[in-house]
Amino acid sequence: MIVGVPKEIKNSEFRVAMTPAGCREFVAHGHNVLVERLAGEGSSFTDEEYIAAGGEIVDTAEEVFDRAEMIVKVKEPQPVEIARLRRDHVLFTYLHLAPDFEQTAGLVKSGAVCIAYETVELPNRTLPLLAPMSEVAGRMATQVGAEYLLKPMGGRGMLMGGVPGVLPANVVILGAGVVGMNAAYVAVGMGANVTVLDVNLDRLRYIDDLWGNRMRTLYSLRHNIEEAVYQADHLSRHHLPFSIAWIKSIHFTI
Amino acid sequence: MIVGVPKEIKNSEFRVAMTPAGCREFVAHGHNVLVERLAGEGSSFTDEEYIAAGGEIVDTAEEVFDRAEMIVKVKEPQPVEIARLRRDHVLFTYLHLAPDFEQTAGLVKSGAVCIAYETVELPNRTLPLLAPMSEVAGRMATQVGAEYLLKPMGGRGMLMGGVPGVLPANVVILGAGVVGMNAAYVAVGMGANVTVLDVNLDRLRYIDDLWGNRMRTLYSLRHNIEEAVYQADHLSRHHLPFSIAWIKSIHFTI
Amino acid sequence: MIVGVPKEIKNSEFRVAMTPAGCREFVAHGHNVLVERLAGEGSSFTDEEYIAAGGEIVDTAEEVFDRAEMIVKVKEPQPVEIARLRRDHVLFTYLHLAPDFEQTAGLVKSGAVCIAYETVELPNRTLPLLAPMSEVAGRMATQVGAEYLLKPMGGRGMLMGGVPGVLPANVVILGAGVVGMNAAYVAVGMGANVTVLDVNLDRLRYIDDLWGNRMRTLYSLRHNIEEAVYQADHLSRHHLPFSIAWIKSIHFTI
Amino acid sequence: MIVGVPKEIKNSEFRVAMTPAGCREFVAHGHNVLVERLAGEGSSFTDEEYIAAGGEIVDTAEEVFDRAEMIVKVKEPQPVEIARLRRDHVLFTYLHLAPDFEQTAGLVKSGAVCIAYETVELPNRTLPLLAPMSEVAGRMATQVGAEYLLKPMGGRGMLMGGVPGVLPANVVILGAGVVGMNAAYVAVGMGANVTVLDVNLDRLRYIDDLWGNRMRTLYSLRHNIEEAVYQADHLSRHHLPFSIAWIKSIHFTI
Amino acid sequence: MIVGVPKEIKNSEFRVAMTPAGCREFVAHGHNVLVERLAGEGSSFTDEEYIAAGGEIVDTAEEVFDRAEMIVKVKEPQPVEIARLRRDHVLFTYLHLAPDFEQTAGLVKSGAVCIAYETVELPNRTLPLLAPMSEVAGRMATQVGAEYLLKPMGGRGMLMGGVPGVLPANVVILGAGVVGMNAAYVAVGMGANVTVLDVNLDRLRYIDDLWGNRMRTLYSLRHNIEEAVYQADHLSRHHLPFSIAWIKSIHFTI
Amino acid sequence: MIVGVPKEIKNSEFRVAMTPAGCREFVAHGHNVLVERLAGEGSSFTDEEYIAAGGEIVDTAEEVFDRAEMIVKVKEPQPVEIARLRRDHVLFTYLHLAPDFEQTAGLVKSGAVCIAYETVELPNRTLPLLAPMSEVAGRMATQVGAEYLLKPMGGRGMLMGGVPGVLPANVVILGAGVVGMNAAYVAVGMGANVTVLDVNLDRLRYIDDLWGNRMRTLYSLRHNIEEAVYQADHLSRHHLPFSIAWIKSIHFTI
Repeated sequence: MIVGVPKEIKNSEFRVAMTPAGCREFVAHGHNVLVERLAGEGSSFTDEEYIAAGGEIVDTAEEVFDRAEMIVKVKEPQPVEIARLRRDHVLFTYLHLAPDFEQTAGLVKSGAVCIAYETVELPNRTLPLLAPMSEVAGRMATQVGAEYLLKPMGGRGMLMGGVPGVLPANVVILGAGVVGMNAAYVAVGMGANVTVLDVNLDRLRYIDDLWGNRMRTLYSLRHNIEEAVYQADHLSRHHLPFSIAWIKSIHFTI
Repeated sequence: MIVGVPKEIKNSEFRVAMTPAGCREFVAHGHNVLVERLAGEGSSFTDEEYIAAGGEIVDTAEEVFDRAEMIVKVKEPQPVEIARLRRDHVLFTYLHLAPDFEQTAGLVKSGAVCIAYETVELPNRTLPLLAPMSEVAGRMATQVGAEYLLKPMGGRGMLMGGVPGVLPANVVILGAGVVGMNAAYVAVGMGANVTVLDVNLDRLRYIDDLWGNRMRTLYSLRHNIEEAVYQADHLSRHHLPFSIAWIKSIHFTI
Repeated sequence: MIVGVPKEIKNSEFRVAMTPAGCREFVAHGHNVLVERLAGEGSSFTDEEYIAAGGEIVDTAEEVFDRAEMIVKVKEPQPVEIARLRRDHVLFTYLHLAPDFEQTAGLVKSGAVCIAYETVELPNRTLPLLAPMSEVAGRMATQVGAEYLLKPMGGRGMLMGGVPGVLPANVVILGAGVVGMNAAYVAVGMGANVTVLDVNLDRLRYIDDLWGNRMRTLYSLRHNIEEAVYQADHLSRHHLPFSIAWIKSIHFTI
Repeated sequence: MIVGVPKEIKNSEFRVAMTPAGCREFVAHGHNVLVERLAGEGSSFTDEEYIAAGGEIVDTAEEVFDRAEMIVKVKEPQPVEIARLRRDHVLFTYLHLAPDFEQTAGLVKSGAVCIAYETVELPNRTLPLLAPMSEVAGRMATQVGAEYLLKPMGGRGMLMGGVPGVLPANVVILGAGVVGMNAAYVAVGMGANVTVLDVNLDRLRYIDDLWGNRMRTLYSLRHNIEEAVYQADHLSRHHLPFSIAWIKSIHFTI
Repeated sequence: MIVGVPKEIKNSEFRVAMTPAGCREFVAHGHNVLVERLAGEGSSFTDEEYIAAGGEIVDTAEEVFDRAEMIVKVKEPQPVEIARLRRDHVLFTYLHLAPDFEQTAGLVKSGAVCIAYETVELPNRTLPLLAPMSEVAGRMATQVGAEYLLKPMGGRGMLMGGVPGVLPANVVILGAGVVGMNAAYVAVGMGANVTVLDVNLDRLRYIDDLWGNRMRTLYSLRHNIEEAVYQADHLSRHHLPFSIAWIKSIHFTI
Repeated sequence: MIVGVPKEIKNSEFRVAMTPAGCREFVAHGHNVLVERLAGEGSSFTDEEYIAAGGEIVDTAEEVFDRAEMIVKVKEPQPVEIARLRRDHVLFTYLHLAPDFEQTAGLVKSGAVCIAYETVELPNRTLPLLAPMSEVAGRMATQVGAEYLLKPMGGRGMLMGGVPGVLPANVVILGAGVVGMNAAYVAVGMGANVTVLDVNLDRLRYIDDLWGNRMRTLYSLRHNIEEAVYQADHLSRHHLPFSIAWIKSIHFTI
């Protein structure tokens, strides 16, 4: 099969649908891979890497669509891309059609076979192409949240992990699914005081097995959420006497 | 040297000053060890074990004091024992003389060399015969405290470690010395939410090195103590909906 | 639905079937909750907390039974309660009917729909209303067991976790189910030397994954049980020389 | 003693020299504490909290300097503050005089006793008022570094901790002192692959004791630094096939 | 049933099919167990232990086959053993028939019911009699591999776990199944820098849950395998200055 | 200074006194380094690496000794090397003179300044050039010991770490110094059941801090050593029923 990888053109999208490593796998299985020139640039992959992986660099998106049988992308096709789709194309990308009538109509009209990543489902009903997104989202969430505790970002000038003698931030996580657990993993690692709430006791038991009292689990009820959040909000900012009193907000002058 | 081990006679004292293993060490170093018959009984050591370790069983305390050059005991000598001390005796035991004029006067009068365990000091100024007592006391403290959280003991019917979905008990420990750290070690192990306060930041740093966020460290100030204890006291007893609401007090009917 | 929560009247039963948090959930789903005056007292819940959660306090058990459509309790209904049940009642509580002919006959005669907590089963055949009991029971078991190692409780005067230089207690756990694993979790945390036996190797593998050599797993055979128990019973009480020989039994004089 | 806490006036300095908790300690020791109105505002402490802690709120910095015997601050005094210093003042703050002739001359001229936090030294030659700054700096460093791995911050679009199947970032830390170890602690916690270099083998041994193979230690030589940094720089960005190839840069579109 | 345990006769096979503990279980279930004299010798089990477990020691293999209804062995039957099989025998052992026509023909001709351990399958399609072999093989693999890093064994003179200041060996494990995970478990324990590759992301997620950054997980692609192995092969042997430069190869002179 | 690195000539000594990394450090400090051709071969260092590090390769040992001011070696000088020493040489290597009169006399006669690695002492009285040897020796000891548990090496056919359901080997370590702790570290990592004995309780406390109940500490007395070794020797080899009974000795047929 001829697989085409156009450069993403949606605003602020720097990713590419296939890494050189992925390209090499396709080629090893007997497929041809066409990669648009500089398609990997935003993700730090050079054209030379794709060539070394057995891919062919082509100059334009038009040529990619023209020659390829299957198009793999990251984001939903933009109008100019939809216009290039043909009845004999397979399009494999995130589509998120529900709120996007225009795209849906365009895809239908193209006659192409369009497979949305977000709908690929394994026999056990998990969504293998969404799970890694959730892992990234969860780990990022804590990292970004830690930034927003800082004074220059509008926060209270609080350090996620505290230091010996000063309590760390309290992190309350609602839902112990993939996103929640990955967020919790990073929060514990940064030294925060983490409470995870969920209505699934088996999930909380697994967390307890893995983390013991490095994390606290709490059955998710209105009352418990309120109490956990209230305690987290009750900023513990009085812990030190004068000699090292300001260490909680030092970061903005470093 | 002839070392004598009388049976302890103070009320409720079941310990013995020398184990068979200790006896064996003395004998291996060329000493003779006299053990009063049944001296080890309260600690589950039989006379036969002392004999196997090279000791000699003698029938009465009188004989132990009569023949021995050094008397080793657990508790301070009782009046009947003081009366048996001679000028050529060495007495090695806990004395705690400060509040006990009568004993002090008796020992002075006996002329014996009396060495109190609690005053033995190493060059680095630590007290090697008190430290193990502190370790035991610390570990016991948490264990006993856990019992007193239970309803039949007059507690709130709370389980030290909680269960998945129910918060564990909060344990606040004032002072991160030997007692405190051993108490904290057991409390964390039982699943409690532990906060340790001390004015020695280096000590808190060592705790943070060892335990990370399995324990929380807090600089010991009036404000912090109050806040930590207040939060621990604010019993979290609303965490579950009806179907498993009573698991916090189940223990008294088991 | 009108849900009624009578005060438990069985001897030594201090629990209550619904916490204020549970009450709040019921109310949030559109139900009315009637709570008998002081029903929560034994579990430290005040009438005011139930009112704040949207419940209504009623003065007598009679009124609870009279007005409620579903009765939720902890323990099986006592004769006076059975007499209050009506054909249009739903009773939701632990029943344990098997050995209790009188209760069974009474419930049949009442005509009420009686659902026993202990029989509620999920599609995967687990018993969600028994599992938390098992968790509590397992964690309690070790805690109570540790007490019974102490001299005043008739034990050998042994500290569960030992101290540095003195071996801890050996804990042998037969069965790695919910009770066993929760018992093991606390025992390891208290510092004991724990061996878990089960015939389910997959369960032992999971334990090995989680705990590595903080716990030992052993296939459950007659021979292995005997050997494990024998070693645990072979009390290691000779470990220290004279100077700190008695630390194993100090607890009863603290 | 009358202790004065003026509001910090240096640009971008939001900290305050004494927390309400510190104020309470001073007052408990018999001192009077004067706090300039809104001095704690930038650190989220209200005037009311200082009053509750026994402090007195005064309206102006002039009054603080006028009435206080000791002035505690965060940053070196600004010219307007230097002008307010008197011969009978004690000034306690960070000074960093070395590069600042003008300040030095001003302080000398004032005749005040000026004690720089950064010069306070314990008998064991550690600097107790700098160490917490280093702890904060180290923990912040990793947190900030993680941000700069992200695409929108000019980084390569890399997630500190990776996700299962994708390697985490490599973090190389030169120097295993307070800053280094605190940076390493957070980096390991976020899931990074951490290598710490130092010329002090005893320090590396302590790290190995604490962290085992969650961290790698390397003797600090030109060759080793180069090699460690080279490997960290050799961005591992090819690890996934096409279906989840872009997860390393997803964060900027979330 | 009469169960017979002949001594293994295949070259270099020192194992025995049934331990005394196993014998005891059979006897407890009402079976008779015949054990050939010295059958357990290669595994350090004495005839007396089998007798104590309720077994009967018989002098020859002939008698075992003659009297037993089921023969349990370790390795496939050797020609002389096949000749002893009868139509009314059950043979339970590893067979590995696929490459062994001669054995297959012999077993068919014997008419015995032959059950190969390696084909026993549980309802969930796992192979319970192969899994423990895989566990042993995995744990052994690392141990043996560590030996082959040593100079006298033809290796580079490298210590698996390094020492503080010297990087440990890199271990790359292809496949996170039972063998791979057990190999990884020991490698991490010995201090190596471990990378595990697999195409099963759920398996890698479980590893990440258990091990966090004590191990690195990598999706198994041609590119990733090459890169992981290349880095492992890029022997880090320059890490120390002259004073302790040779510690990596010291082992062969100890 | 001109530093010379001759190739080691003692039988079975494959190490080299200076790595290329060490050479680079010397050169960076302004020294000249002469390395005998192929001196690094036994440790996998090429002449090219020394040249790249700024060293000079010389053809013979004679030339190294002739031109160098300081000679660095691994092992004590052999007679032919002693003969090359001059009054203006500094020799820096392991000497172990005590049992070696001939070498001592030769060195004295040469007039060279000879500094033995094993005598270099820091102000705190530690021996920095022996400690890494002890670390290597300790880690190697367990690894080698594990091999000698195997049947082909004359052992009982026992796997260090056991597998789930089968107890691991018991490892008893006498002395918790550098060698002992490094041996213990690897033994725990491999899954063994480890007991460490020492007379230094502070050392045992540090072990307890670091390892908790992954290791057991025991005060070193005659009785305790005997008991610990006896238990370790009481090989637990009966743990499994017949179906997986032989997994303890499988390794020799893999």
